[in-house]
Amino acid sequence: MKTVDVESLKERMEAFTRSLQDDICAALERLDGTARFREDAWIRPGGGGGRTRVLEEGAVLEKAGVNTSVVFGELEEQFAQRLQGEGRRFWAGGISLVLHPRNPHVPTVHANYRFIHQGGKAWFGGGADLTPYYLYDEDATHFHRVHKAACDKHDADYYPRFKAACDGYFHLRHREETRGVGGVFFENMGGELEKEFAFIQDCGRAFLDAYLPIAERRKDTPVTQAQRFWQEVRRGRYVEFNLVYDRGTVFGLETRGRTESILMSLPPQVRWRYDHHPEPGTPEARLVEVLRQPRDWARGG
Amino acid sequence: MKTVDVESLKERMEAFTRSLQDDICAALERLDGTARFREDAWIRPGGGGGRTRVLEEGAVLEKAGVNTSVVFGELEEQFAQRLQGEGRRFWAGGISLVLHPRNPHVPTVHANYRFIHQGGKAWFGGGADLTPYYLYDEDATHFHRVHKAACDKHDADYYPRFKAACDGYFHLRHREETRGVGGVFFENMGGELEKEFAFIQDCGRAFLDAYLPIAERRKDTPVTQAQRFWQEVRRGRYVEFNLVYDRGTVFGLETRGRTESILMSLPPQVRWRYDHHPEPGTPEARLVEVLRQPRDWARGG
Repeated sequence: MKTVDVESLKERMEAFTRSLQDDICAALERLDGTARFREDAWIRPGGGGGRTRVLEEGAVLEKAGVNTSVVFGELEEQFAQRLQGEGRRFWAGGISLVLHPRNPHVPTVHANYRFIHQGGKAWFGGGADLTPYYLYDEDATHFHRVHKAACDKHDADYYPRFKAACDGYFHLRHREETRGVGGVFFENMGGELEKEFAFIQDCGRAFLDAYLPIAERRKDTPVTQAQRFWQEVRRGRYVEFNLVYDRGTVFGLETRGRTESILMSLPPQVRWRYDHHPEPGTPEARLVEVLRQPRDWARGG
Repeated sequence: MKTVDVESLKERMEAFTRSLQDDICAALERLDGTARFREDAWIRPGGGGGRTRVLEEGAVLEKAGVNTSVVFGELEEQFAQRLQGEGRRFWAGGISLVLHPRNPHVPTVHANYRFIHQGGKAWFGGGADLTPYYLYDEDATHFHRVHKAACDKHDADYYPRFKAACDGYFHLRHREETRGVGGVFFENMGGELEKEFAFIQDCGRAFLDAYLPIAERRKDTPVTQAQRFWQEVRRGRYVEFNLVYDRGTVFGLETRGRTESILMSLPPQVRWRYDHHPEPGTPEARLVEVLRQPRDWARGG
């Protein structure tokens, strides 16, 4: 790996993530119909900064964050040893988005694509995953198939590997549940950086095709108070995952990124109810069952 | 330290925490006036178990948990190395309580007293701390003075040491704020176990005196929607602390304690609003200022 390649990839990655951010925000504003993203540009004292875009209190999106950032400088020693690179010098650039829709029939979605350079090592990471409150099998299947198509264009091994990695990563050990119905997740693709960059661009560009049709067809579903309650309880699991397990959140907080940009991922309204379990046989109970036993969604679940 | 002393302390600690749990639950039911604690006795497959008591949807207490547990067995190797004892054999017994009142003028409160034995080492730990949403200086002062009195009875050094340790421990680095106005926190008292056990009993017995008068005088304060909103936003910080930093929560989840008992500490209804800052000059803004600069509450703040 030549230094010049890595430097060129950093520049192209930054341009790609910013352009993707523009396209996704524009499409989400069209989906929402009323609310607009506000933009906060921020600078990191240690080096770098970001462009945070958040939309709140929309008609369809209760809270949405679509952020890009490039941060670089020196890692704290202890934290540097926990990453896969070498030494304390680092550069990290990427896009990260989380959408929390108002209607519990529309799933929450997360996507993140990043390029990290630490010492002599550089790697891409990221993925996209879907977190429904009410499970429509066809939605999970659609989301997986769009990502599988993006994977298959590059390497037939990608989808099965990254699908399994996604189920493994988005797992709440203390709940014995996955966060949602998964998608794709990758952090060690192999090391052919140009090939990987081509892949993550296709994967990032697939996001709108994967998610918008689901949001469009569920956003006007009638909602009961009990369904809203269930959505808020399940959002609690989202918070638990992000604050206890998520490496991106820990990376952001440890590298002293901008706290409000990192924690934009947390849902707008959340409940914790002691020992709440849905009645057997209900759609709520079926969701929990499925989250305990990942399905092969690309094949139809 | 003789083995027989430690075994006797374990027995007495278990009896003490259960009796304190009974007294505190009875007093809280009287405070609330309407709701009752439900009890869940649970058994830990690896060894031990607990008595979880939770009250929800009360008139005064929106959610309250008062738990005792004794867990023992083998720690996972990696986790064992992060504790102060030696080896993987462990025993841990204690009481842990968190009260989330409905009225934002009544502070949230947490207390925890525990005895841990790992390999050849045994130690007490714990403390109590107050988390107001609206800050009444006299409440913070009262809470500190009651705990100071319990400390002073045993050692003049205790209160200043444990007050400072509390401010240091309940600190959200990513927010540059303490969780609340503190109290006392201790984990390394010195090693005279009988003396320490006498102290933690007095400290635990001080809890009701420290908290009940505050709850009684604030529980009927009129509340606006904006104040409720602020309470829910601040409860978000409580969640962030417990899931990102709290050693008790991590200990519980890592030792495969009962998840619902560990996470009873999480507030019932919570909000995350992007980059929310109170207007300068408001009571909300003053709270945040105080949380950035710990005060000497026992002397009146």
